[in-house]
Amino acid sequence: MTKAYQVVGIGNALVDVISHVEDEFLAANGVEKGIMTLIDKERAVELYGRMGPAREVSGGSAANTIAGLAALGARTAYVGKVKDDQLGSIFAHDLRAQGARYATPPAPPSHWHETGRCMVLVSPDGERSMSTYLGVSEFLAPEDIDAAEMAAAEWIFLEGYRYDGPDSIAAFETAVRATKRAGGKVAITLSDPFCVERHRDEFLRMIAADVDLLVANEHELMSLYRTSDLETAMARAEAEVPLTACTVGPKGAHVIGGGERVHAPATRVEVVDVTGAGDLFAAGFLHGLTSGRDRLTAARMGCLAAGEVISHVGARPEADLRTLFAEAGLL
Amino acid sequence: MTKAYQVVGIGNALVDVISHVEDEFLAANGVEKGIMTLIDKERAVELYGRMGPAREVSGGSAANTIAGLAALGARTAYVGKVKDDQLGSIFAHDLRAQGARYATPPAPPSHWHETGRCMVLVSPDGERSMSTYLGVSEFLAPEDIDAAEMAAAEWIFLEGYRYDGPDSIAAFETAVRATKRAGGKVAITLSDPFCVERHRDEFLRMIAADVDLLVANEHELMSLYRTSDLETAMARAEAEVPLTACTVGPKGAHVIGGGERVHAPATRVEVVDVTGAGDLFAAGFLHGLTSGRDRLTAARMGCLAAGEVISHVGARPEADLRTLFAEAGLL
Repeated sequence: MTKAYQVVGIGNALVDVISHVEDEFLAANGVEKGIMTLIDKERAVELYGRMGPAREVSGGSAANTIAGLAALGARTAYVGKVKDDQLGSIFAHDLRAQGARYATPPAPPSHWHETGRCMVLVSPDGERSMSTYLGVSEFLAPEDIDAAEMAAAEWIFLEGYRYDGPDSIAAFETAVRATKRAGGKVAITLSDPFCVERHRDEFLRMIAADVDLLVANEHELMSLYRTSDLETAMARAEAEVPLTACTVGPKGAHVIGGGERVHAPATRVEVVDVTGAGDLFAAGFLHGLTSGRDRLTAARMGCLAAGEVISHVGARPEADLRTLFAEAGLL
Repeated sequence: MTKAYQVVGIGNALVDVISHVEDEFLAANGVEKGIMTLIDKERAVELYGRMGPAREVSGGSAANTIAGLAALGARTAYVGKVKDDQLGSIFAHDLRAQGARYATPPAPPSHWHETGRCMVLVSPDGERSMSTYLGVSEFLAPEDIDAAEMAAAEWIFLEGYRYDGPDSIAAFETAVRATKRAGGKVAITLSDPFCVERHRDEFLRMIAADVDLLVANEHELMSLYRTSDLETAMARAEAEVPLTACTVGPKGAHVIGGGERVHAPATRVEVVDVTGAGDLFAAGFLHGLTSGRDRLTAARMGCLAAGEVISHVGARPEADLRTLFAEAGLL
């Protein structure tokens, strides 16, 4: 039986606030280049006050993946917490307008926190440094998980970033149980090396018990297995997970599983803003996987979707991904 | 004596909600292509619900001009009404971060309306169709005008769009009096041909009494003087205003005044989104004028700034305008 959703993503529901900066700004304001740092509301206000003019685009790692999948025509849904405020309305609109189901109840206007946002500072070299005020996205809890939605998912896609907080870990457990009980599969993205540092034990436990697909970049995978050697990390992943997709930046991506390894080269583009590269790789790869394509084709789809998103500012696709895929002979 | 501000702009404080559409969407949803239509809150909710994913960028015609001037290093301030809500914070941030003073008191959270927004639907040919929910920007009133700020302005720049409503017309009158009393000058932009239709008598009265610089495109100027002949319209303008800058789309701009006429060609760029073309022409032109450059140089600055803004999505400059001007030998 065809399930209602090919992929249901769960993660931090955020609006990106994107601005271009010189690297000196990062140094002067204590922003560490190239990584995601969690900040509180006060720091968010302070940093925003110092930033230049910005544009606002819906973001959130797993939400970007779901938006990419929806743009590709996949049947998708998303779970993540916004507030009933203007930024929350923008986030919800952008996902639904892309064709994804999004039914997580928003936090009420009386909630102390606001819809979360991620200040994305893009350097001249295209690298992005993210300062995230999680806002109400941090309050994702088991009651936000609709068991029927999970049961209707071929895959659920869990965002590592949302492992900050016991309520959300419990929400993930609820989601995993409901999905698996109905014969669905579980994918997880490790999000970033520091996220892996914070949650290594939880990730390893999840991976051993429930994960069918692990999506990570090389730094995250090496951090997970506490090694500086990518081959060692990939061998560990192969032993523990049915399928692993490991991106290696400008070198593309490896897919490993069941004694087979394939490699897809990165799509050559002029890099404007790397935000969303991993998220859109996951979108393309999951699209290939859930539409019955072979692993190499799925990996090529991932690389092509990632190439599109890094060629412009913002972490959601702007070009018509289906046209791009068709032109590359991937449809 | 040097005044604190070279230009103070007054207009509709709006956040643009920008999305790409096929022309069929415009037809199916009753959006008239290429013009600005005022819509109410209900229609705004309805249209937003049907639009695709969007990005949010601060907008507002005169605010775009002020942002452009600030980006060029001019001393600027802006007057326009937002609410104390998230979109209002975004609007205020973007102007201040660009270096403009912005001190208009926001409407309180209890106000029925929200910060205004302009849904900008960009067609494949780069033409934009705007549906504007004015929100609290409509409530600009004489008490929002700081007479000391007006007295500190070499020029005030009035947005024709804000002539909808008696309170705002009174606000403009207050601003004009305070500016003129202190020896400042008055510029006005006619905003669009339909705006001219609505306010022709008021515009003609203002122009005859107080306007030192009229900024318009050919369609607005011809509408103002009820003629289909641009030469006739320009002759009328020359007779009634000390200085007129009339943009003519891909043919550039004419500057007319005191028996002299100069023409600057348009900057050749690939047109992505024409939103803000007139606003940024005004920014470049006023920058030239207020920094003591000749009219032709000022018009060339206007065309160059307009060329930058139509080469990307969004109505605020993204490239470093000073660098562009320097490269073109205009600084």
